[in-house]
Amino acid sequence: MAVSAKPEIAFIGLGAMGFGMATHLVKQGYAVTGFDVWPPTLERFRAAGGNTASTPAEAVRGRDYVICMVATAAQAQSVLFEGEHPALAALSEGASLLLCSTVPCAYVQNLEAQLVEKGRGDVLLVDSPVSGGATRAADGTLSIMAGGSDKALEKGRFLLQELSDTSKLYIVAGGIGAGSNMKMVHQVLAAVKILATSEGLGFAQHLGLDLGYTYESIQNSNASAWMFGHRGPRILSEFKPIASAIIIILKDAGIITSEALRVGFSTPMTGTAEQVYLSSIGRGYGADDDSSLIRLYTEGLKDSVSVLNEDDKAKKLALVQGLLRGIYLCGTAESLAFAKRCQLDLDQVYDLCINAAGGSKVFETVGPEIIDLFRGKQTVTEAKGESLQDVATQLQEAVAEAQRLKMPLYLGTEASNLIRLALQHTPDQAEPLPRATIAKVWAV
Amino acid sequence: MAVSAKPEIAFIGLGAMGFGMATHLVKQGYAVTGFDVWPPTLERFRAAGGNTASTPAEAVRGRDYVICMVATAAQAQSVLFEGEHPALAALSEGASLLLCSTVPCAYVQNLEAQLVEKGRGDVLLVDSPVSGGATRAADGTLSIMAGGSDKALEKGRFLLQELSDTSKLYIVAGGIGAGSNMKMVHQVLAAVKILATSEGLGFAQHLGLDLGYTYESIQNSNASAWMFGHRGPRILSEFKPIASAIIIILKDAGIITSEALRVGFSTPMTGTAEQVYLSSIGRGYGADDDSSLIRLYTEGLKDSVSVLNEDDKAKKLALVQGLLRGIYLCGTAESLAFAKRCQLDLDQVYDLCINAAGGSKVFETVGPEIIDLFRGKQTVTEAKGESLQDVATQLQEAVAEAQRLKMPLYLGTEASNLIRLALQHTPDQAEPLPRATIAKVWAV
Repeated sequence: MAVSAKPEIAFIGLGAMGFGMATHLVKQGYAVTGFDVWPPTLERFRAAGGNTASTPAEAVRGRDYVICMVATAAQAQSVLFEGEHPALAALSEGASLLLCSTVPCAYVQNLEAQLVEKGRGDVLLVDSPVSGGATRAADGTLSIMAGGSDKALEKGRFLLQELSDTSKLYIVAGGIGAGSNMKMVHQVLAAVKILATSEGLGFAQHLGLDLGYTYESIQNSNASAWMFGHRGPRILSEFKPIASAIIIILKDAGIITSEALRVGFSTPMTGTAEQVYLSSIGRGYGADDDSSLIRLYTEGLKDSVSVLNEDDKAKKLALVQGLLRGIYLCGTAESLAFAKRCQLDLDQVYDLCINAAGGSKVFETVGPEIIDLFRGKQTVTEAKGESLQDVATQLQEAVAEAQRLKMPLYLGTEASNLIRLALQHTPDQAEPLPRATIAKVWAV
Repeated sequence: MAVSAKPEIAFIGLGAMGFGMATHLVKQGYAVTGFDVWPPTLERFRAAGGNTASTPAEAVRGRDYVICMVATAAQAQSVLFEGEHPALAALSEGASLLLCSTVPCAYVQNLEAQLVEKGRGDVLLVDSPVSGGATRAADGTLSIMAGGSDKALEKGRFLLQELSDTSKLYIVAGGIGAGSNMKMVHQVLAAVKILATSEGLGFAQHLGLDLGYTYESIQNSNASAWMFGHRGPRILSEFKPIASAIIIILKDAGIITSEALRVGFSTPMTGTAEQVYLSSIGRGYGADDDSSLIRLYTEGLKDSVSVLNEDDKAKKLALVQGLLRGIYLCGTAESLAFAKRCQLDLDQVYDLCINAAGGSKVFETVGPEIIDLFRGKQTVTEAKGESLQDVATQLQEAVAEAQRLKMPLYLGTEASNLIRLALQHTPDQAEPLPRATIAKVWAV
């Protein structure tokens, strides 16, 4: 396709993610008209080769493709329907509207209904949240989870392809809402693991371990995780740069827990993480990088690094690994059980999550076993290799040690109690159980 | 019995509780020899008519009755067995040893074994933790939960009677450890309700309710509780007087969660409370009155009281009530399920708890239904009156509102997730379920 043949794009919401996505499209030769409420951003966007508009209506008028990448459902509602110059009034007949913001499934389904109600059933809505961070946004290599009608997906696909990595564009069956649900279950993993990074390294600090050593050792072990790999270094560099504010993951956690409430699904791991995020808001930490949550674990701690012999170091490191692996196991089960509840394709969820920010060694290895369990394929009563009781034992050693150190382990304690619930409901606890058995807490 | 005929008593540990108990015995005409590591206390005790000793051995030598009321198991171990002049060496043949401290079941059982091992199986140990606070200690009207051999209970009974209210001396079947288990399951209620008071009133403050109005209204409703009645006023008087420090309930929560770990029982409600207690330690709040935990909910909050019309006030008050009642329901279930796990007499547990610091309207009404459920008597499938779903709905309204207010509700969120777990495992969620169904999360 010649450059001149590329369609014009309206782009609403030029924040950290949106700016990267929009400028990437500019670089690919699209004429992009951007809108944002923050004027300096518009100036930057013009400098990057984009056009700008002063209202949502002006941005979308006459354009066949509209991408909305605002921060929240409330903002999406506002730019589309509210104010003096909402986008709705100016949307072209049959326009593609790609909502890339992370919003509750309920919101995007409601948006579809609103369009119909207002006589704009012609708009080809795509529910297409993204994942991957600002760098991948600017490179056009995001993960994208897209749901919608066949017609809408067909028309919008080239744009989704421009913005995503070839192997990371997921067309999610189930229509409008399915993309958002896919993102949501991924964010269960993200919300739990962001806090787990602080909990694990905060615990390491109380144990007197050197954090650099701990970080390297964990990432080279079966307790490794994508989030730990990203937040860990920011903890080591005093929570700089501010790459992802606490309020961002709080918002995503809120989507998970409010959707869970709505459909009557239990999310104890995400709920625990959310409460800690909320407690940081009262402290005035909301705009800080989420790696700074370690402060909630280390305050009042005086000595940070002890002189330890190799044997002590190895034992203490094992405690941190046991903590993280117990948390990740429960996070994995909560995420996949919620995916099942949302009737998502579990293989697709797995494929998405192992390659995205929610991934970890534990998710990678135990995920397939949990999916088998949900499908009734789990006929082995004996655990192959590591059992649920093994995970419990290691986690509980960490929890008991934290109790001695008088420090909180919010997620570790929650995970430990969930595993005990699973074991309490198992007739013969003495037999080693597969780790996947934990998922029975959520779904029978 | 003439005054002169009363036996001499050794009393080890003259803290807030022990001092009151020991001076009460002095007033009843006993010759009491006290020991404590804190010299000013000994001076006060002499001024109150007691005798004092400078070592544990000196206190117990030649005396047939020894009461130990130190703060922790570690302190009990120390005064009995460690140091230069431990009590053990000087204990009379066949002496009564009443351990009134709150300690883990495992500790007091281990103490019994240690005595046998050291050739002192003759000592008549009674496992007799108390409840009721310093005022009742000084009045001789404590609740006491006593376990031990028939012979030990027979010999020590008059002393237990002196220290307790007539109707509040519970002889707990099951030998050494049973008294401590009884106290422990009561403390599940206490640990959850101490934090719930701060959570409820902290939520009220975010809602713009006047705390005095809220306190009165709650205590005159079906959301009332003994702890709320005691901690509430101290919240209103700026956490004064310091009647019970955070470290005290933290210690008791630690006994619960470590015993739960040991026996493989899940205590998510107590575990959640414990993490919040632990977080306050890092903040330097440990020695403050436990009513001051409200600070963990209200920090960063600017306006405290809004002008509300009666309708708004009633609606907001209902949210606080819904929160507390949901928390109390789950606390009740956790406590009774743990009691069942410890093979305690559930009728006795119930009788103890309704008359003690752990009591509440919710415990009083739902407790018998849960006990019936555990005994397989629950044959009604329809809820009489309020259903579990009703409790869930009201609790979830509170949780959703707190989410909007961006404040944490640690216990409320935990309770909400536990109720949803219970409902997820119920084949037909649409039918109203008895509130007692929540207990199925812990025990099937």
